[in-house]
Amino acid sequence: MTTSTAYTDLLHELKELSLLGSTMSVLGWDEQTYMPAGGAAHRADQFSLLARMWHERFTSPRMGDLLAQAETDLAAAPSADGAADMAVNLRETRRDYDRATKLPAKLVEELAHTTSMGQQAWAQARKDNRFGDFQSWLEKILSLKQQEAQCIGAASGEPYDALLDEYEPGLTAAELRTSFADLRETLVQIVGAIRESGRTPRLDILSRHYPAAQQETLARTAAAAFGFNFDDGRLDTSVHPFCSFVGPGDTRMTTRYNESDIGDAFFSVLHETGHGLYDQGLPAEHYGTPLGSYVSLGIHESQSRLWENLVGRSPAFWQWMWPQFKAAFPDALADVTEEEWMFAINSVQPSLIRTESDEITYNLHIILRFELEQALLSGELPVADLPGAWNEAMDKFLGVQPPTDANGCLQDIHWSGGSFGYFPTYTLGNLVSAQLFEAARTAIPDLEAGIARGEFSPLLKWLQKNIHTHGKRYSPAELVQRATGKELSADALQRHLWQKAETYYGVRQ
Amino acid sequence: MTTSTAYTDLLHELKELSLLGSTMSVLGWDEQTYMPAGGAAHRADQFSLLARMWHERFTSPRMGDLLAQAETDLAAAPSADGAADMAVNLRETRRDYDRATKLPAKLVEELAHTTSMGQQAWAQARKDNRFGDFQSWLEKILSLKQQEAQCIGAASGEPYDALLDEYEPGLTAAELRTSFADLRETLVQIVGAIRESGRTPRLDILSRHYPAAQQETLARTAAAAFGFNFDDGRLDTSVHPFCSFVGPGDTRMTTRYNESDIGDAFFSVLHETGHGLYDQGLPAEHYGTPLGSYVSLGIHESQSRLWENLVGRSPAFWQWMWPQFKAAFPDALADVTEEEWMFAINSVQPSLIRTESDEITYNLHIILRFELEQALLSGELPVADLPGAWNEAMDKFLGVQPPTDANGCLQDIHWSGGSFGYFPTYTLGNLVSAQLFEAARTAIPDLEAGIARGEFSPLLKWLQKNIHTHGKRYSPAELVQRATGKELSADALQRHLWQKAETYYGVRQ
Repeated sequence: MTTSTAYTDLLHELKELSLLGSTMSVLGWDEQTYMPAGGAAHRADQFSLLARMWHERFTSPRMGDLLAQAETDLAAAPSADGAADMAVNLRETRRDYDRATKLPAKLVEELAHTTSMGQQAWAQARKDNRFGDFQSWLEKILSLKQQEAQCIGAASGEPYDALLDEYEPGLTAAELRTSFADLRETLVQIVGAIRESGRTPRLDILSRHYPAAQQETLARTAAAAFGFNFDDGRLDTSVHPFCSFVGPGDTRMTTRYNESDIGDAFFSVLHETGHGLYDQGLPAEHYGTPLGSYVSLGIHESQSRLWENLVGRSPAFWQWMWPQFKAAFPDALADVTEEEWMFAINSVQPSLIRTESDEITYNLHIILRFELEQALLSGELPVADLPGAWNEAMDKFLGVQPPTDANGCLQDIHWSGGSFGYFPTYTLGNLVSAQLFEAARTAIPDLEAGIARGEFSPLLKWLQKNIHTHGKRYSPAELVQRATGKELSADALQRHLWQKAETYYGVRQ
Repeated sequence: MTTSTAYTDLLHELKELSLLGSTMSVLGWDEQTYMPAGGAAHRADQFSLLARMWHERFTSPRMGDLLAQAETDLAAAPSADGAADMAVNLRETRRDYDRATKLPAKLVEELAHTTSMGQQAWAQARKDNRFGDFQSWLEKILSLKQQEAQCIGAASGEPYDALLDEYEPGLTAAELRTSFADLRETLVQIVGAIRESGRTPRLDILSRHYPAAQQETLARTAAAAFGFNFDDGRLDTSVHPFCSFVGPGDTRMTTRYNESDIGDAFFSVLHETGHGLYDQGLPAEHYGTPLGSYVSLGIHESQSRLWENLVGRSPAFWQWMWPQFKAAFPDALADVTEEEWMFAINSVQPSLIRTESDEITYNLHIILRFELEQALLSGELPVADLPGAWNEAMDKFLGVQPPTDANGCLQDIHWSGGSFGYFPTYTLGNLVSAQLFEAARTAIPDLEAGIARGEFSPLLKWLQKNIHTHGKRYSPAELVQRATGKELSADALQRHLWQKAETYYGVRQ
């Protein structure tokens, strides 16, 4: 083992910072699930105190000193026992520390304040369908984010990369543009072919009466079968579904039950279960350090999408689940065949709202946002022109035109909260999920036969071994390369989506 | 307003310490309600970090400097605007600060560690009914508490007072001995008279089948009618009922539903509602400072006991509630009259377990503990002799002998956690509740007629005005004196209990 006391002290600091962070996770989870309405103002006070304490402690000179000394110690004994782990933890802590200390405290405060106010302005503007009321806020936020990008800097010189790097370490806008250009063309082609196929599923079967209690039972059955450990986690209800990792032994998912939409809760639980399995698969012995943390938002999303879409919408999965659905909802599903069901849950339909869109068109919603946020950040697209640019792109990509800005460029919270560079991680997750699933299928020859019997542990074990247990040991790109033997690309996702289009709509490339 | 910047800074520090403390309240509430079992170890880590941060910050030299400077500022302008409030906040902060800084860090750590291990040893010893396995832990804990008492000191010279003062500022063991001696004699007399009366209620009616859902509805109805604001609070389930004040707008009660014991959940909710109403009645504008905090455990308990017993077991209350019970439980209560019901919920029966005892014998359980813990702390009673002394006192006070130590001196968690001087606050709460209720009856002439119609707001307003809004402005003794016009004594409780004994058992003083 290494004898660096600076490193030991650094790990201790990181562990305590994680405990402070995970306390905020409990506060956040509670706020979304059980907190009484009257507690909101007090909760905001608790949050801002803890966030400030966390930031002060993480960016303290003591932290910088420990880090520098530990780096010196590592350089002096690069092949000591434990040096490989130490190298990862120092590399990632250095990354985070430099990022955090590059931002002047004044800018951090201004960003926190402006985005907090901006989110309220956005919520009201969306409600009133008045983009003009939000415009000046978005302009202010953009200007602050431009300053942030400048403070942080990027090797490429592209300000966008400085922001993207927060969510997806090492990835660049240039790489995304390459993957997405290809993908975008394919998606537009598939959507066009599907439109011309003239086929449509019986969508009414999804909006019949589905009692919430049975929905919950089925969702829990699926989550447990996937491998989610309910002794170390929970499933509750909240307005928006999410998964929160509190700490080892404590991972909490939420969903919401809509009795006239069977897809909403069920697929959201499969999705959150994917996130939860990643959290439960992180190595607890490294809790609080980079080796015990998820590697990037894109990889996290790849886990949720893999279980939601690659598994959860597959014929094999429904061989196992369909009889359980039929038994749970005898009235709603009385006249529905398994084939009709499969078509309905795999239907493709251009729509206005990202969060309600299907597996194929979802990515077009993302690519649209990715293109627009680059243009906003570079200043090429003035904020005032955003609604027009949005509607034009919607027409071009999806052939639909938002009747209002509330259903258009005001639909998402992200930009109002200062999250630029976040959207592409969703589609990145889809890319990775398809590539991982292809690799898993090769590695586990009878994967689908097992799934059809409700056996998911071979897949989970493969994901644990190839993704979860590594924490931040490898960069996202390296992790994908090692797991799949290939560089990350949109190929597997395109194959998967064409396959789907052929199965349900009879269209071919 | 005062111009002391030290005072302004001190209030800011206190507010932030309260936010840190209230974050621990959320963690504690969550642990008892929704935390998955696997999260226990991580939760303990979160707790110990936050507790240490709180303690370091509160006992810091900066805190001492601000306090001293603010005291100097107050002395220089004792009649400035706001000086009265300032005087209260400084008096109470000085009290807490001195208490906290008198304890060496090593003793604090040793106490935390030993009581944490001691509680586990106690739980196991109780389970195994082996007092011997707990004896050495209790000896260690007692020795540490004796050191604590010595560090803190007491004007009286009695070590017990140094510990009691933490829960009940200003009260002494000598005062308690006087009140309790009187009370004890009365209680033994009443219990004897009741035994000889030969009357017994139909107790079987309380253990029939009472569905949990209806129990919850009725408990919520009563809590809301008493005035508990559910927009600013919650009611959940946990193993042991409790009420936790998170902060302004966020007060959380819990209970547990036993379908074959109608009293358990219902009266515990009335009890916790009393605590909750006090918390909701604290002045939010003073949150985080002594003026916004409850004054003592005894006064807190007086609020829970007042609503649980003085209101909740009264004929007036049941004039309003009985028809609702009859409607909710048509089967269980089909053959039960209101008179039989009233007798059953007011029955008196010596028993082994404090938490299951009735309104009268409960106080004998407390007085027994009060006497024994004084003897333990002074060294007069060796720990090894505790079981014998316990059983002897049970026989003398209640005429029952515990068949096992698990049902005897091992039944309560308090001592294993180092809580000496805590028990008497329960009976103190009973004393105060009766004295307050007598005063409220004088102040509100048609109080009982209103209660019989389900109107509780005159009583709540009286309590808010006389108790809740004052925070720590007055000492507990002064508060009771101001609210009732009398010094605190056991007289009102004795009148109340004799009255009860006469009503249901036909016995007289």
